[in-house]
Amino acid sequence: MKMRLSYLGPEGTYTEEAATKYDPCADLVSCSTITAAATAVVAGEADEAVLPIENSLGGAVAETLDLLIHQSELQIRSEIVLPIHHSIMAKHDTNPEDVTVVYSHPQSLAQCRGYLERNYPNARLVASLSNSAAVGEMQSSEETAAAIAGRRAAALYEAHTLDQDIEDNHSNATRFVVMGHTDHKPTGTDKTSLCFDFDSDAPGILVVALGEFSNRNINLNKIESRPTRMGLGRYIFLVDIDGHRQDAKVVEALDALRKHASMLKVLGSYPREVSSSI
Amino acid sequence: MKMRLSYLGPEGTYTEEAATKYDPCADLVSCSTITAAATAVVAGEADEAVLPIENSLGGAVAETLDLLIHQSELQIRSEIVLPIHHSIMAKHDTNPEDVTVVYSHPQSLAQCRGYLERNYPNARLVASLSNSAAVGEMQSSEETAAAIAGRRAAALYEAHTLDQDIEDNHSNATRFVVMGHTDHKPTGTDKTSLCFDFDSDAPGILVVALGEFSNRNINLNKIESRPTRMGLGRYIFLVDIDGHRQDAKVVEALDALRKHASMLKVLGSYPREVSSSI
Repeated sequence: MKMRLSYLGPEGTYTEEAATKYDPCADLVSCSTITAAATAVVAGEADEAVLPIENSLGGAVAETLDLLIHQSELQIRSEIVLPIHHSIMAKHDTNPEDVTVVYSHPQSLAQCRGYLERNYPNARLVASLSNSAAVGEMQSSEETAAAIAGRRAAALYEAHTLDQDIEDNHSNATRFVVMGHTDHKPTGTDKTSLCFDFDSDAPGILVVALGEFSNRNINLNKIESRPTRMGLGRYIFLVDIDGHRQDAKVVEALDALRKHASMLKVLGSYPREVSSSI
Repeated sequence: MKMRLSYLGPEGTYTEEAATKYDPCADLVSCSTITAAATAVVAGEADEAVLPIENSLGGAVAETLDLLIHQSELQIRSEIVLPIHHSIMAKHDTNPEDVTVVYSHPQSLAQCRGYLERNYPNARLVASLSNSAAVGEMQSSEETAAAIAGRRAAALYEAHTLDQDIEDNHSNATRFVVMGHTDHKPTGTDKTSLCFDFDSDAPGILVVALGEFSNRNINLNKIESRPTRMGLGRYIFLVDIDGHRQDAKVVEALDALRKHASMLKVLGSYPREVSSSI
């Protein structure tokens, strides 16, 4: 039976590309928000959900982090890293010199700022809710318009590609997580994501908490802090460590961390695609 | 002589409100991007710049963090915390039940999602580049439109306020930094912002580095990680600590940290408005 994969749509977004990379045969279920894509799995309308979590230029995707922290009973069961290459596209008869307006998602406009300043210095930049929506807005625009999106969107909407790989930084990549009812069984090269916070205001508590990993030679991959919804100045930490939550030394470290933390949630263990040490 | 304050414009944004809170008498210089506001100070067109750095719901403002890390020779000399309250506004003769489209910045739309679902379930949500631009788009829209922005924008554009304080979470606040050619002299209740990264892949290096503060009883206020532009998996850390960079124990800790880090940049010391311990 084919897997049903929900994702942050509409069709033609980079998240759809990531979902196709994860399972080329899956039935894709487009959702209009990150929360809706996760809810589709909880409600049984999809088996797993693909959500963007981090871009190498834009940083963390706040809505996905908040979903993991506050709402979801789902677990992370895989990660996908997708290089992001932007194209600029227009209607078929468009002369680039006549373009007066460029539509795209604000992050994509920011990632192509240098290119746009050099090549379209007089065009107005207009924000869209997704790259894919930008192509639709370009096509229904009464001005001579262009849109920035991925190749998949150009093909899907039969737009004319004016130029490819126009991002200012070519190491631009986005990391996606796949969420499901359970996480992944151990493979030997795994990663575990977790989040925690502290009740105590004791200076140095974060260092003590992270020491539970380094003392056991467990590699820390990344750390993010998110303001709690209680306001500025209180944070929840999101950490990726090497190893599976069933590994003996990870079990030990998590038990020790639980003693310092007021909340500790294991978000899932899964095979690692990217790794680093901090 | 009046201070000239550049800020992320246009007029009517929350950053303008923060600039006015910082110095009600200043001459305000509206800039179209975060980078342009900083450049105005470097070029002598403004004395100081006011930039958003962190929202309690949306998290860090990536462009400001990147400016601090990579580009600016300016120092942080103050911080401003502004509670964020959104209003929904329309043209004067508008019946809320007739509204078919709501314009705002994507972050503001996200912060009012619950309110919009309850009160405008059938309205289309359209992204704008700023809250202030949203009000202009509402006014020139041919549909029955509304916009979400601050009270200042409603007054400035003479829009009719349909409802106030419509954000889903009322502890919503944004922290702004003021950048200038020098940071602030010691006041006794200061904070210092810095960033650093590591060459080494030694597991536990972050714990050792942060230990240089906790070992000296220096309180850590916050930690953010930003992907370096080299791609995912390598991070730069941004840290706020209690104390001024001229305080003896801060000098000592920074000297010790310098031995672990491949890059260490002090972003400025300034009087603290918000504090916490981690």
